[in-house]
Amino acid sequence: MTDLPVAATAMPTATDIERWLAADDAARPARLARLRARLDAEGVDAYFGVRAEHSRYLTGFSLANGEEKVAGVSGQFLVSSDETVVLADSRYRVQAAEECTDARVADVYLDLAGRWPELLASLHPRRDRMRRVAVEAGFVSHTTWDLLARAAPDVELVPAEGWLEELRQVKEPAELERVAAACAVADAALVRLLPDIRAGVTEAELALQLEWHMRTGGAEALAFDVACLSGPRAALPHGSPGRRSVQAGQVLLFDFGAQVCGYRSDMTRTLFVGEPTARDLDIYGLVALAQGAAFAELSRAIVTGQAPLNRAVDAMARDVIVAAGHDQHFGHGLGHGIGLATHELPSLGRLAVERPLPSPTVFSIEPGVYLDGEVGVRIEDLVVFDMGAGRAERLTGFSREVTVVGA
Amino acid sequence: MTDLPVAATAMPTATDIERWLAADDAARPARLARLRARLDAEGVDAYFGVRAEHSRYLTGFSLANGEEKVAGVSGQFLVSSDETVVLADSRYRVQAAEECTDARVADVYLDLAGRWPELLASLHPRRDRMRRVAVEAGFVSHTTWDLLARAAPDVELVPAEGWLEELRQVKEPAELERVAAACAVADAALVRLLPDIRAGVTEAELALQLEWHMRTGGAEALAFDVACLSGPRAALPHGSPGRRSVQAGQVLLFDFGAQVCGYRSDMTRTLFVGEPTARDLDIYGLVALAQGAAFAELSRAIVTGQAPLNRAVDAMARDVIVAAGHDQHFGHGLGHGIGLATHELPSLGRLAVERPLPSPTVFSIEPGVYLDGEVGVRIEDLVVFDMGAGRAERLTGFSREVTVVGA
Repeated sequence: MTDLPVAATAMPTATDIERWLAADDAARPARLARLRARLDAEGVDAYFGVRAEHSRYLTGFSLANGEEKVAGVSGQFLVSSDETVVLADSRYRVQAAEECTDARVADVYLDLAGRWPELLASLHPRRDRMRRVAVEAGFVSHTTWDLLARAAPDVELVPAEGWLEELRQVKEPAELERVAAACAVADAALVRLLPDIRAGVTEAELALQLEWHMRTGGAEALAFDVACLSGPRAALPHGSPGRRSVQAGQVLLFDFGAQVCGYRSDMTRTLFVGEPTARDLDIYGLVALAQGAAFAELSRAIVTGQAPLNRAVDAMARDVIVAAGHDQHFGHGLGHGIGLATHELPSLGRLAVERPLPSPTVFSIEPGVYLDGEVGVRIEDLVVFDMGAGRAERLTGFSREVTVVGA
Repeated sequence: MTDLPVAATAMPTATDIERWLAADDAARPARLARLRARLDAEGVDAYFGVRAEHSRYLTGFSLANGEEKVAGVSGQFLVSSDETVVLADSRYRVQAAEECTDARVADVYLDLAGRWPELLASLHPRRDRMRRVAVEAGFVSHTTWDLLARAAPDVELVPAEGWLEELRQVKEPAELERVAAACAVADAALVRLLPDIRAGVTEAELALQLEWHMRTGGAEALAFDVACLSGPRAALPHGSPGRRSVQAGQVLLFDFGAQVCGYRSDMTRTLFVGEPTARDLDIYGLVALAQGAAFAELSRAIVTGQAPLNRAVDAMARDVIVAAGHDQHFGHGLGHGIGLATHELPSLGRLAVERPLPSPTVFSIEPGVYLDGEVGVRIEDLVVFDMGAGRAERLTGFSREVTVVGA
């Protein structure tokens, strides 16, 4: 694998976006068919979904990040053997009609439980049994579950967890293109930020500037809030940027991602402000080596034609860090899938359920070493893994070499 | 009520923020005492909370907007008669120890159900009954509820909905100060945007620029995504800014808010780009009149010393719009409380449960008239309502007069 060249801008065009949305429209029947096959296998008559990513995937209905909090039931959906129904209150009626070309839009506002029996009226149960509806139990509140159960006592609610998440981990070409486009936007933003990094500027100022470069450089939104952590604060895996100033001789860690036409990127670079210390360089080299070992495992799988186990990829990187005596300093998993959500399947954690990697898919490889109160280093790239095409390719283009800034 | 003067900047100082955080620390014992009184009245031994706003309110633990999705159980909390426990996994351990000065931090990661019996071990049930724990059933997933119920079958889970929301609607002085500070940041941002508004610029460009003015002008985050809708699109109560260009002779609606030290603002202004049409001016005058009628009801209540009913305030504004023949064109409620969440109690909708307004509190007054496919006008201000202090005061300072821009 070689580094991609990083352009200074990576703005998706209106044509790109139209093409991606058209690809979604074209792919939706096959996505629905896969879900319906699962419903058949599970012996349920319909699927009630509430997660915004799932609604976009199956119906085309899109909400901004966090908009679920005000949207109420709008965007929630029901898939049966012969129909897809999207709920929308009056605020979202026009949008649902425009975006959900293959679904029926039902006008539901505060009275989901009241409308529930009618929504299920057309279900055709098999073999004379009770009607059974799968519900996203990990995302529906207990209150809602309870209301639905009472509203139609003759319908059995079946907790469905991970059904769509499993389907979504296998990516279509137009999904991979968007993750790649989001990576390019993030790469370009960091390139644009480099001249502004110097001792004295605060983490919060750099985080805001990096966000601005993404938002004006093609990102419709962030994949998540930018993390910018300097020196010992880089040892906090989830710290927020603060009023702390960047100091010479310390590391500066950026963990950030863009969103392009619904799809996310995620990358981490640990830069050096001024002359690096020998200890920090050693740790950086170790983390880079660990990342390389994980990539080698993926390349090996492509050559042998045998999909690797998720935990085996984690182990390849972890072994390098453990061998250097840092087993206590790499507390998180090696990586995670990404797409419509920033964190999705497959999980490459050491605690994940062991299973072969799906294909084609896209995930992060992000080993780190964190010394409490001293320093943290993480290097995170996204990789497309496609056994059929013989492809294990980094999407993150920004250099992984030691990068000294603001000297 | 008179217009506040609007400064071009309204940056909260580090001293302001320290003072507000200290006020929270000082207020927390009284907040917890009010919750414990409710627990007593309901006959439960503890409260298990998962909502991020509640965690910040009662424990001091703060998450960025949307961070719940990656934080897992970190920040979730248990309040019993003699203890407050905050859950945090290794990523959030340091933060919880710093922020939650009066709570015990329990290290819990993926195994909440496994740890549940131990977390409840110290509860002291009364009158020889089963232990009872109130759970935020509207925010806990059905899956989690089920796991907790099975993990400790000898503990009864009691659905708690609205308990903390009711307490939080009465605001402390330092909470009102922050809502006012967030209003000032938003006001100043719109003032700074005015020179950039002209025919030809897109909604998305203006929305991003307005966001930038807030984020560089004292907002730690947005209260919600900026809405910028021009002409007929202003009739969509929840439209997202798009590639549509602003046109002369049309309205331009901005609905936006800032977040300052955890607290939100929310305001809407409908501006005129170039010469307004007579119809649009008529509608604007009507909406302003309706808003004034609602404020008059609040002022009357201050004079009579009798707290008004929430629905009566809605009715005062709505009657004005209905009398003008637009009853079908004002589809949403008049307003909502605001604080740590953008939408909270009290609700001033016509469908809300009828009850007197609490005091002191802060809420929006936002009548609108929407003609599908033609035009939409909304004017939204926040108001502090304090019967004891004889105060019903707008916090939104930006002019409500007809404002022509980009002419």
